[in-house]
Amino acid sequence: MKAHTVYLTFNTERRREFVRITEDVETAVRDAGISEGMVLVSAMHITAGVWVNDDEPGIQADALEWLDKLAPPSWQEPNGEVARALLPDPADYRHHRGGEDNGDAHLKNLLVHHQVIVPVTEGELDLGPWQQIFYCEFDGRRRKRLVIKVMGE
Amino acid sequence: MKAHTVYLTFNTERRREFVRITEDVETAVRDAGISEGMVLVSAMHITAGVWVNDDEPGIQADALEWLDKLAPPSWQEPNGEVARALLPDPADYRHHRGGEDNGDAHLKNLLVHHQVIVPVTEGELDLGPWQQIFYCEFDGRRRKRLVIKVMGE
Amino acid sequence: MKAHTVYLTFNTERRREFVRITEDVETAVRDAGISEGMVLVSAMHITAGVWVNDDEPGIQADALEWLDKLAPPSWQEPNGEVARALLPDPADYRHHRGGEDNGDAHLKNLLVHHQVIVPVTEGELDLGPWQQIFYCEFDGRRRKRLVIKVMGE
Repeated sequence: MKAHTVYLTFNTERRREFVRITEDVETAVRDAGISEGMVLVSAMHITAGVWVNDDEPGIQADALEWLDKLAPPSWQEPNGEVARALLPDPADYRHHRGGEDNGDAHLKNLLVHHQVIVPVTEGELDLGPWQQIFYCEFDGRRRKRLVIKVMGE
Repeated sequence: MKAHTVYLTFNTERRREFVRITEDVETAVRDAGISEGMVLVSAMHITAGVWVNDDEPGIQADALEWLDKLAPPSWQEPNGEVARALLPDPADYRHHRGGEDNGDAHLKNLLVHHQVIVPVTEGELDLGPWQQIFYCEFDGRRRKRLVIKVMGE
Repeated sequence: MKAHTVYLTFNTERRREFVRITEDVETAVRDAGISEGMVLVSAMHITAGVWVNDDEPGIQADALEWLDKLAPPSWQEPNGEVARALLPDPADYRHHRGGEDNGDAHLKNLLVHHQVIVPVTEGELDLGPWQQIFYCEFDGRRRKRLVIKVMGE
C-alpha cells in the first residue's frame, strides 16, 4: 500500500468562501502513483468544511445564504425571524462569551461535514460528471489548512 | 491490497425516494473477496445522498417531510412560514435562473452527505443491528449512478 | 495492509451528551502498529453521531440547543415557533406511532453524520490543533456501540 500526504493552505479574502480544489486533489493522486485506492480530503479546522457539488456560482450563493439562515452569525443582523429564532437564547452563542465571534462557523462545519473520500479508479478520481470538490471556508481571512491523504496501489 | 469497484444505476419512479442498498453492498464485498477492509458507498450525483439508518417507513417519511422544511423545493408551495423563510430571497433559488428546478436537492445533498464508509470485518459488513444503507434520491425519475469501492485484504 | 478493530461501548447518564474519544482513537492506532493509513470512527447506532470539533463546552451546549431547534424532540415542548413548525404534521413523528420517542435522534444522526475518518501520518492522528473527536449521543441512557477500524502499514 502506498500513502501520500499533501497539505493545502488557504487564506481567503472573504470570511465565507468556496474554493475549488478538484485539481489539487488530482495532482496529489498523480504524485502518489496509485491506480486503485482512495483519497481523503479533510479540513484541519473546526470552522471549515469540504463539499462535493456542482461548480455553479448560483448554487454556492444559495448555499451560503441558506447556511446563514440555518446557522446564523450573531455578528450580523439575523436574516429574518426564523434565523433569529435559531440562534441560542438569549440571541448569542455561549461560545462567544470568551471573545470569539465564530459560533455559527462551528455549526456550519457540522452541517457541511469537514471531509470527503474520493475513490480512485484506473489512476483517476472516480467522480460523477458534475462533481467538483470544494473547500468551504466559514471563518476565513487567516491561514487555514487541509490535508489530502492518498492511499492505494 | 485488493480493490473492487461496482456501479449501481437508479431511475426512481418518484422524485424523492430512499432505496435500500445494503444487499448490493454486501454482494460487492463478497465479490471482492476481502476479509478485512472497508467499502466506500458514494453517490456520483450532486442531488442525491447516502444515509445509514433504520429501515422503518415512518422514519423515511419523517425525514423527507423535514428535509422539505429545511431545504424547501420552490417548485411547490412552501411547507409553512418557516420553510418559506428558509428559501433564498426573493423566494427562489439563484440556481433556477438557468432553467433548473432542483436547487433544494443540492442542499439536501449537503445535509445528508453523499457518502458513507462501512467497515468490513471477518468478511462481513460491520454494521450495528439496525443499520441499513440507503441511496437517497432528491431529484429522480432519471438515470443516476452510485459507486461502491471495496478495499482491503 | 494491517487492520485493527476496536469497539467502544457507551452508556451515557444524560439522554444527549458529547463524549470525547480522541484518546481512545489514538490508542487504537498505536495498538494497530501502523505509521501511514487511516482510522474510521463510526457509530453503530442510528440515533448517534461522530463529530470532530473543539473541546469547548460552550460550543457543545450551543450545538445541542441548536440541534433541538432544527430537529425538535416531540417529547418536550418545542423550543419556540420555529422548532414547532419543523416538526412533522400534525406535530409528532410518524416513527412514534410504534411507541418510540426518539424520532428527533434519527434526524440528528442525519445532521451530524455518524462517522469520520482520521488520517494517520508518521504513526499519529493527523488532526489540526483544535480538532478533537466526539461521540455524539442523542438517545442515551442505554448501551450503544461504536467501531474504530484502523487500516494502513
